[in-house]
Amino acid sequence: MSPQVTVIAGGVGAARMLSGILRVVDPATVAAVVNVGDDLELHGLRISPDLDTITYTLAGEIDPEKGWGLRGETWQAMETVARYGGISWFGLGDRDLGTHLYRTHRLGQGATLTEVTAEIATAWGLGLRLLPVSDDPVRTVVTLAGDGGDDGTEVSFQEYFVQRRHAVPVTAVRFDGAESARPTEAAMAAITEAEVLVIAPSNPLVSIDPVLAVPGVRDAVEARRSANVAVSPIVAGAALKGPADRLLVELGHEASVVGVARLYAPLAATLVIDEADAELADAVAAAGIRPVVAETVMRTPEVAAALARTTLEASR
Amino acid sequence: MSPQVTVIAGGVGAARMLSGILRVVDPATVAAVVNVGDDLELHGLRISPDLDTITYTLAGEIDPEKGWGLRGETWQAMETVARYGGISWFGLGDRDLGTHLYRTHRLGQGATLTEVTAEIATAWGLGLRLLPVSDDPVRTVVTLAGDGGDDGTEVSFQEYFVQRRHAVPVTAVRFDGAESARPTEAAMAAITEAEVLVIAPSNPLVSIDPVLAVPGVRDAVEARRSANVAVSPIVAGAALKGPADRLLVELGHEASVVGVARLYAPLAATLVIDEADAELADAVAAAGIRPVVAETVMRTPEVAAALARTTLEASR
Repeated sequence: MSPQVTVIAGGVGAARMLSGILRVVDPATVAAVVNVGDDLELHGLRISPDLDTITYTLAGEIDPEKGWGLRGETWQAMETVARYGGISWFGLGDRDLGTHLYRTHRLGQGATLTEVTAEIATAWGLGLRLLPVSDDPVRTVVTLAGDGGDDGTEVSFQEYFVQRRHAVPVTAVRFDGAESARPTEAAMAAITEAEVLVIAPSNPLVSIDPVLAVPGVRDAVEARRSANVAVSPIVAGAALKGPADRLLVELGHEASVVGVARLYAPLAATLVIDEADAELADAVAAAGIRPVVAETVMRTPEVAAALARTTLEASR
Repeated sequence: MSPQVTVIAGGVGAARMLSGILRVVDPATVAAVVNVGDDLELHGLRISPDLDTITYTLAGEIDPEKGWGLRGETWQAMETVARYGGISWFGLGDRDLGTHLYRTHRLGQGATLTEVTAEIATAWGLGLRLLPVSDDPVRTVVTLAGDGGDDGTEVSFQEYFVQRRHAVPVTAVRFDGAESARPTEAAMAAITEAEVLVIAPSNPLVSIDPVLAVPGVRDAVEARRSANVAVSPIVAGAALKGPADRLLVELGHEASVVGVARLYAPLAATLVIDEADAELADAVAAAGIRPVVAETVMRTPEVAAALARTTLEASR
């Protein structure tokens, strides 16, 4: 009998972690509580990038080269949009567009994001429960560092991440709407009732934090700290993907497993760090979280499965 | 110097007529006042089938086999929607989707349908002015004849035309929103100021009537009746495309050029009828409209151009 496992999840790193977990435990016992702070509305469509990245990855349909979007994708709609001079910085492939059309249609009918997400997951044959942390809007807003007179410009997460290719310094992050958002019952139950709670190797500041920022979630995670395991998204001082390392430094943290340990010590009893960081194990322990050293760079499904096994065992 | 020409337009038939007119007069002197009663909102997107059919046809990009949609179209988004069990009866090709994404985005920004339509037309290099009759919503609603207990069901035009393939009898047509819609200034000016006003060979009851139903339009057309020329969409008692012949009968008219003549006599001094209907010329005249006989089936661009020339000359 598999333990009930819940994963606090962002996008790419969480999707790989989940694919490993699904190889070692019964998918029916797994839930993911997923960030919605990256969500956006574009061209009238409701887009949930983290939910879709997880869905497409677990369906085996993710574009293996880009790490997001679907395999065998075409870009005809975007070419038409570009002809009109419309918004084309956020690439929506033709296959992928169908997901946003369906989601927008169902939300317009009054379905919740939780319901639509479940329908989409079922259609791709996924066995786990994929749960947006909230059905209410939470939007990650990033303050860009000034360059000349530009100080303090706030942009949406995707304007920072995709449009500016996360190549600009950041001075602050906030989660618009979080204070009045309610976590879903399903997400809260998945957090409180799981035997093991895993904090996926996602960006702590813009993927995990917006999940925790929904009222009640951080408290619920902290209340069960002893059975929680985080996996460091920082390996040898760098993010495997995305701007987590730079964001940590820009927002006053250390871009290392020790910096991650300080952020996660109140949330989890255990932190899985990479073999490359074994020498920092004592410093992690000194930050108040038990280090477990493992191979964390999920280059193959086998490595992801081994990391999942180590992570789940580390919670015991 | 070309005459100023304005065409009251539906979709496919009007698009062909316009392509003929643009071969014989300066495109800068041509305006089309286009039906919006077929418009719909689907998947959160704003779709204007008649405007798009005209745009794609005049751009030389219409799918020549289907008569609607774009050449070289792919259907990946719809395949994804179908995977989810979403709405797939209204086919939106991937290239075409870009038009709806752009339109929806710009309308969401507060642009008018007239403005967006002009931007789209310019992007395709069209020289004429393409004018929705109104920026306000007008929606053609069709009452389906009962078959058993089904009497009186109202459906949107596209649910009748596409979803049911116009294969069900109709007892009534109305234009929801028309009474409170305002014609655009540009559309009214195009109607009142044109030297020649052409009523395109579109469906009189569901393409031309919803244009005329916008307050002020029918009066403006009637007020200049002597310089107006209609082209019959009925040839030898049948519609070339679509259900115009059946609709005429179902709604109490005659499915012939004489039936068309009775509908258009208050609106135009002249009716161009096909050579196949030459023997009905006297009956057309008796209905109060001057018949002009010509080849009206626009099998080739040359025939369309010849029909355009005849039509424009007929107004003199």
